Amino acid sequence: MTGLALIAGSGRLPAILAGHLAAQGRGPKVLSLAGHPPAGLHSTPFRIEHLGTVLARLPAEGVREVVFAGSVRRPPVDPAALDEATAPLVPGLLAAMGRGDDHLLRAVIGLFEAAGMAVRGAAELMPELVLAAGPLTGASTDRQRADAVQARAILDALGPLDLGQAAVVARGHCLGIETIQGTEALLDFVARTRPGSGGVLAKRPKPGQDLRIDMPAIGPDTVDQASAAGLSAIAVAAGGVMVLDRKEVVARAALAGMAIWAEP
Amino acid sequence: MTGLALIAGSGRLPAILAGHLAAQGRGPKVLSLAGHPPAGLHSTPFRIEHLGTVLARLPAEGVREVVFAGSVRRPPVDPAALDEATAPLVPGLLAAMGRGDDHLLRAVIGLFEAAGMAVRGAAELMPELVLAAGPLTGASTDRQRADAVQARAILDALGPLDLGQAAVVARGHCLGIETIQGTEALLDFVARTRPGSGGVLAKRPKPGQDLRIDMPAIGPDTVDQASAAGLSAIAVAAGGVMVLDRKEVVARAALAGMAIWAEP
Repeated sequence: MTGLALIAGSGRLPAILAGHLAAQGRGPKVLSLAGHPPAGLHSTPFRIEHLGTVLARLPAEGVREVVFAGSVRRPPVDPAALDEATAPLVPGLLAAMGRGDDHLLRAVIGLFEAAGMAVRGAAELMPELVLAAGPLTGASTDRQRADAVQARAILDALGPLDLGQAAVVARGHCLGIETIQGTEALLDFVARTRPGSGGVLAKRPKPGQDLRIDMPAIGPDTVDQASAAGLSAIAVAAGGVMVLDRKEVVARAALAGMAIWAEP
Repeated sequence: MTGLALIAGSGRLPAILAGHLAAQGRGPKVLSLAGHPPAGLHSTPFRIEHLGTVLARLPAEGVREVVFAGSVRRPPVDPAALDEATAPLVPGLLAAMGRGDDHLLRAVIGLFEAAGMAVRGAAELMPELVLAAGPLTGASTDRQRADAVQARAILDALGPLDLGQAAVVARGHCLGIETIQGTEALLDFVARTRPGSGGVLAKRPKPGQDLRIDMPAIGPDTVDQASAAGLSAIAVAAGGVMVLDRKEVVARAALAGMAIWAEP
């Protein structure tokens, strides 16, 4: 028992992080929402209707830290299945939910903290998930860097509106801005509609985004999708965007002739 | 001869405007780019390579005012076909083109003005092309008006970046922001990717946009596309967005249960 629990969602991150921690002798206790087992990782499922019981049990089992990894969709809640420890939490969570996903996430973090656990970010436990400022692969051109500057100005303008985790700019023209449908939908739109080729995908966290449980990420699929959209570069925020499966990201970027770098 | 020339592009606007002017006894001299005759309207074609000659000839023929209507794609220019009056204009137009579409439009306006003609906006000659503040059709809900306020905040944030003529917001979530691919591509994206239904398309000119030759527009197709994207309302800038074929717009909006209004 290492005193660390990993709440695992979907995607590659839970297995990557668990493997990393295990190699350090910090193999975590892994939990997941019932019906949504994480890929490639053994976990103990729990029902969202029993969250209150989980919050009480984990510290009793010696858990002092918890890390969330992978994405989770809002699970449906069956009111009839709520246990005694969870029912009192529902009004607060519903109120937070009404104010948006960010508020719901913060409320969930707050519940773990109130139960005596520290909430850690995946990148805090595995710093190599994020990039230091500078090139990751490929050599960027002046044109790409200028497009990245423009994309960042767009994201900076939208940040105060809690919008804009990614934007695509090519030769000075904005070809797409991420909305709630996500980066994959953005890149698919660009692939379908864009004139010409080239351009940069810029991805950054929004100001105020809780990087412990909601850090943006790119992975091998992002490289493939950006390449299919005709883009030639990806610029991410140093320390603010996870790169999942970095080796594969670099390999596919090299194959696609794509430059990837991190900006301060 | 009324002293007015109409440079006609594609779409419904040239025929609508010419008909309106003719009914007022101001039937204009209609010109169009060779190979791109306007729909439902007789016109005299000219080659872009002969623009300089046209600029000299129109005032000589008594033209004192010119209005641009309909959209024009940058025509390809055959250097070998440039006439003597046009060749000297090319360096200036190329320089403007390098700085973006807005600059190119302004350069073209400048050429007509330098040749002694006043450039009028279509909405200046036909004020009923734009809406006064208030409802056009349907009754808007609090939810729709709140979504429109949010969409406008997004467009206001992007305006200084010469971006954002339209945005879609539904129940407080931004579902799409117009980029250079245009409103139709935006609505198609929303239709393909959106969760749920409802929401508002907000459309406004960008700050600094020359409304004489580049005013945004909606028409019956916009209503159909917005409806197909699940939207229930369209909010436009009063005096800043043309409504082409208003009668048909109202009829289709009524059929789709859609509210349309103009904001100050």
